[in-house]
Amino acid sequence: MKKNHFPIGMFDSGVGGLTVMRQLIQFLPGEEIVYFADTARFPYGNQAPQSVCRYSQENAAFLVRQGIKALVMACNTSSAHAFHSLEKTLSIPVIDVIGPGAAKAAVKTRSGHIAVLGTASTIASKAYQKAIMAIDPAIRVTSIACPLFAPLVEESFINHPATELIAEEYLAQLRTSDVDTILLGCTHYPLLEEIIQKSAGPGTLIVDSAVACAQEVYRVLKAHELLNESQNEDKIHRYFVSADPDKFQKQAATFLKAAPQKISLAEDISETND
Amino acid sequence: MKKNHFPIGMFDSGVGGLTVMRQLIQFLPGEEIVYFADTARFPYGNQAPQSVCRYSQENAAFLVRQGIKALVMACNTSSAHAFHSLEKTLSIPVIDVIGPGAAKAAVKTRSGHIAVLGTASTIASKAYQKAIMAIDPAIRVTSIACPLFAPLVEESFINHPATELIAEEYLAQLRTSDVDTILLGCTHYPLLEEIIQKSAGPGTLIVDSAVACAQEVYRVLKAHELLNESQNEDKIHRYFVSADPDKFQKQAATFLKAAPQKISLAEDISETND
Repeated sequence: MKKNHFPIGMFDSGVGGLTVMRQLIQFLPGEEIVYFADTARFPYGNQAPQSVCRYSQENAAFLVRQGIKALVMACNTSSAHAFHSLEKTLSIPVIDVIGPGAAKAAVKTRSGHIAVLGTASTIASKAYQKAIMAIDPAIRVTSIACPLFAPLVEESFINHPATELIAEEYLAQLRTSDVDTILLGCTHYPLLEEIIQKSAGPGTLIVDSAVACAQEVYRVLKAHELLNESQNEDKIHRYFVSADPDKFQKQAATFLKAAPQKISLAEDISETND
Repeated sequence: MKKNHFPIGMFDSGVGGLTVMRQLIQFLPGEEIVYFADTARFPYGNQAPQSVCRYSQENAAFLVRQGIKALVMACNTSSAHAFHSLEKTLSIPVIDVIGPGAAKAAVKTRSGHIAVLGTASTIASKAYQKAIMAIDPAIRVTSIACPLFAPLVEESFINHPATELIAEEYLAQLRTSDVDTILLGCTHYPLLEEIIQKSAGPGTLIVDSAVACAQEVYRVLKAHELLNESQNEDKIHRYFVSADPDKFQKQAATFLKAAPQKISLAEDISETND
């Protein structure tokens, strides 16, 4: 088999990364994808950076064993703490969610003032801020932690008046600022895009890190001559979880906007038992 | 020093147990308390039962080293998984939050139908349900997981219209049932008592596990002749955390309804590094 027919591997701590998966399926319809959700160690947000690094390495090693041609880190916490170490150690291309989103927002802003929304952990890591600054140090970044957004999405309070009230409170400061671009720095937030747009006002551009990541995956595969442009209608995306496949199955449809096909329990992810 | 002058030890994975601490201070004004928050390993809710058991044993061992006369498990997840093992291994009295709350609700209900509210993990453990059934198998229990309540409290959305809307949704089924008693099975929920009462209607009795636990601590100390009834105004309650004392300090006031005094970082809680 030619290498461009190998699957793309991606991982997240849970179902959130499926919003990235959905964009990948849309932008790269010829590709087969293997998705790994580290549900046994979910959530990563509160873990020490060195633990997140070790988990990410173990997840990547598992996916490499599935014979992938490229790795997508569909997890903001992993991207913040483990991207450089994975990029250095793996011999296949590695794409994270932070770099592409930051680059897209930096290009799009006209006012030079971007708001980044994320979990408390992603905001505290300053990963998006640093990535934007590295591209253009003149851009101002307002970081807003929105810790209730991910639980609201996981509980299916998506088009709910309660979520609207909470979004209005989180984003109140944007109404009186010159922020013209909002970067969604959490894989759960694309599902709240409508509510976020409503709170921020119609003049604000929303940049979805998942879309930016999928576009970057396309660019990288093309550059490495790894793109699969075949019209294989029979391809099956595979899903592995480290715990509780039933819960994953139940939650997945919200994020993927389709039912996931083949879900298996991955065993022996961890190199050490803890 | 007489043994009844020794402090009471209590632990939780975070700040939630401070609602129990507050009741203890109120019901046992003569007592000195040492509170340990295992913030480095918070939250316990998603952890495997055997990990919760190990953490609970390590927390208890740390508190025993502080010379306590009794141990209060101010954490529902620990109470569900580790109460019996700690009760068996420790030579001091151990009081959990589940047993006393269950007993009080079982005594109070007239209709014989109790609703238990808790996190997804506590509800899945069926610990309250089993404790109530053990007291009176004729009592019916409706268990309602309210996964957004704890994050809403931690984010200070306490008397907020969004929280009211979410409570109305979680408790909608109670309006058409004969439930006459609601048991608050999470240490965060006493802060939402007003909103829960409003959603459930004025005829429903709310039993706070934290109050029931404090009353049980009084009873147990009295029975063991360990009660400190001195009028020592100079006593200082001590607080230990396994990580991030600043964050604890900031969050604590909401739960304790007072600023905590002496907060220290506890080192070497874990017997094994993970």
